[in-house]
Amino acid sequence: MLGAPIACSARTLSLLTIALKSRWSCAILFRMQIVSSIAAMSRLAKKWQRAGTKIGFVPTMGYLHAGHMSLVREARKRVCQGGKVVVSIYVNPTQFSPTEDLSKYPRDLKRDLKLCRAEGADVIFTPTDAEIYPNRQNQKSEIGNRKSFSTYVVEEKLSQSMEGASRPTHFRGVTTVVAKLFNIVLPDVAVFGQKDFQQAAVIQRMVADLNFPLKIIIAPTTRERDGLAMSSRNKYLDAEQRAQAVILFHALQAAKAAVKTKSVSASRLKADLKEFLTAAPLGRLDYVEFFDPETLEPVAQVGQGTQMALAVFFGKTRLIDNARL
Amino acid sequence: MLGAPIACSARTLSLLTIALKSRWSCAILFRMQIVSSIAAMSRLAKKWQRAGTKIGFVPTMGYLHAGHMSLVREARKRVCQGGKVVVSIYVNPTQFSPTEDLSKYPRDLKRDLKLCRAEGADVIFTPTDAEIYPNRQNQKSEIGNRKSFSTYVVEEKLSQSMEGASRPTHFRGVTTVVAKLFNIVLPDVAVFGQKDFQQAAVIQRMVADLNFPLKIIIAPTTRERDGLAMSSRNKYLDAEQRAQAVILFHALQAAKAAVKTKSVSASRLKADLKEFLTAAPLGRLDYVEFFDPETLEPVAQVGQGTQMALAVFFGKTRLIDNARL
Repeated sequence: MLGAPIACSARTLSLLTIALKSRWSCAILFRMQIVSSIAAMSRLAKKWQRAGTKIGFVPTMGYLHAGHMSLVREARKRVCQGGKVVVSIYVNPTQFSPTEDLSKYPRDLKRDLKLCRAEGADVIFTPTDAEIYPNRQNQKSEIGNRKSFSTYVVEEKLSQSMEGASRPTHFRGVTTVVAKLFNIVLPDVAVFGQKDFQQAAVIQRMVADLNFPLKIIIAPTTRERDGLAMSSRNKYLDAEQRAQAVILFHALQAAKAAVKTKSVSASRLKADLKEFLTAAPLGRLDYVEFFDPETLEPVAQVGQGTQMALAVFFGKTRLIDNARL
Repeated sequence: MLGAPIACSARTLSLLTIALKSRWSCAILFRMQIVSSIAAMSRLAKKWQRAGTKIGFVPTMGYLHAGHMSLVREARKRVCQGGKVVVSIYVNPTQFSPTEDLSKYPRDLKRDLKLCRAEGADVIFTPTDAEIYPNRQNQKSEIGNRKSFSTYVVEEKLSQSMEGASRPTHFRGVTTVVAKLFNIVLPDVAVFGQKDFQQAAVIQRMVADLNFPLKIIIAPTTRERDGLAMSSRNKYLDAEQRAQAVILFHALQAAKAAVKTKSVSASRLKADLKEFLTAAPLGRLDYVEFFDPETLEPVAQVGQGTQMALAVFFGKTRLIDNARL
């Protein structure tokens, strides 16, 4: 546990030395709180805020992997010594459509807690559906329900293409739950992964548009040895699918190579990549797009600096990846 | 100025005595800041927050009257001594439809500042459209604009009837700008007027749903001597319209009297009130509704505790009022 790459200050190190000498339990030094109620999390955040303690925040859906852990390390780095790192674990129902994998989305809280503890997170926030969306029901049937949930945050431009086109209610769920979590956890800094490139762009736009008093950090994608982007959904893949799934990464590499010395028309490059993807016969392309990394507007001509993103189904599992070319 | 009804603490009073004895200028004691940039307001709010200073907030569209001043007093009361009261003055374009009175909405900043100063407000926040909605344009034409505004907060249930039905994009504009102002001003308490009953209900729902870390206070409607609810829009009325406008208040009184001893069917009471309103021939009824004060759901049977709201046009001027029966 102590070997985890935490950015230790001199003060932390000296405390550590004292602790080890006096045979305190390391668990006391790195005591991690698990908070489930919104009221308790909110009280804690307000207490820290009053004390001038910086708060770093990593919102997740759990089933954590090395990619999430890199976000926790980034949050720790940003809040420095004396700061607090909060990781939320919440599988947010509003970002899944009725046909998607909400009920079978992988969960393993015990393992998640162990990973977060090893990384030195201060608080794990695990709210319940009942508290996050009180009495959320079908819009028609909830009439007359005094406490039913009815407010959403919607981003109307960057959220329309790619993931938004394939999953029409997805980003509305993301922006709504992230706005809620920001108001509960009161972070100074929140860290999101580059793997969900469009999500990161939508969140940044929301924070700017609604003037959330915090800074968003986008941390690089963590990859398996062969290049596959880490994702909780990789768990769904069988051995053969897993072997072929690296095609997403290879497609990004191929596109990078194609535009290394000259720009190429997007339609031509798309056609070439479709051909390229046939090397993974278990994969079924959902989309491949070339776009401006800030506006997410498609470009006709692909060159260096263009952003590429793609989504590929393996069975029912949908994998995404992206890169700046 | 010193005669203004400020809830003075003992400490404030003793400071005041010292100040007067030492011939300090009262202007120093009650120095009011006028802040226009979002960054400056945000810095100030964060500074107060770090210092543990309570922040009371009154969002307005300016052209202030005694009703607004009662909200400022309420905010002062809530943050007690040492707290800060911020009044925002911003005519929010997104809550007006293209056919409404945005461009001719009354403005008088000089007079507003004088009133706020007299009431002991600490900061007047007067942001610009350019900062609140950077490059907001027609949804189609803004494509490609990197900094264009595209995130909205929408309440989908309480906002549908009455004002929401008469002014379809109104509440989306209200919730969006209020969410922004909350994130900039970081209030502990925000005060809204009971006159805009549905707005207050929608804002309270938004604060609960999105977990804004603040408390909403609804302050009672301030009325002219004859009973007309104070409103910046009363200015639009000519003498004859003004004389007849009191019919809204009288209609509320009549409905109260009608349900004093027995409940009455809503359709019957509506018919009676339409008849009653013909006493003001310059008025044209937009709606009169009887509903549950929490869910805003219409009731079939009107009794004590039912909420009533109505909107009446006088020329192009639309007046609203409401009461708990």
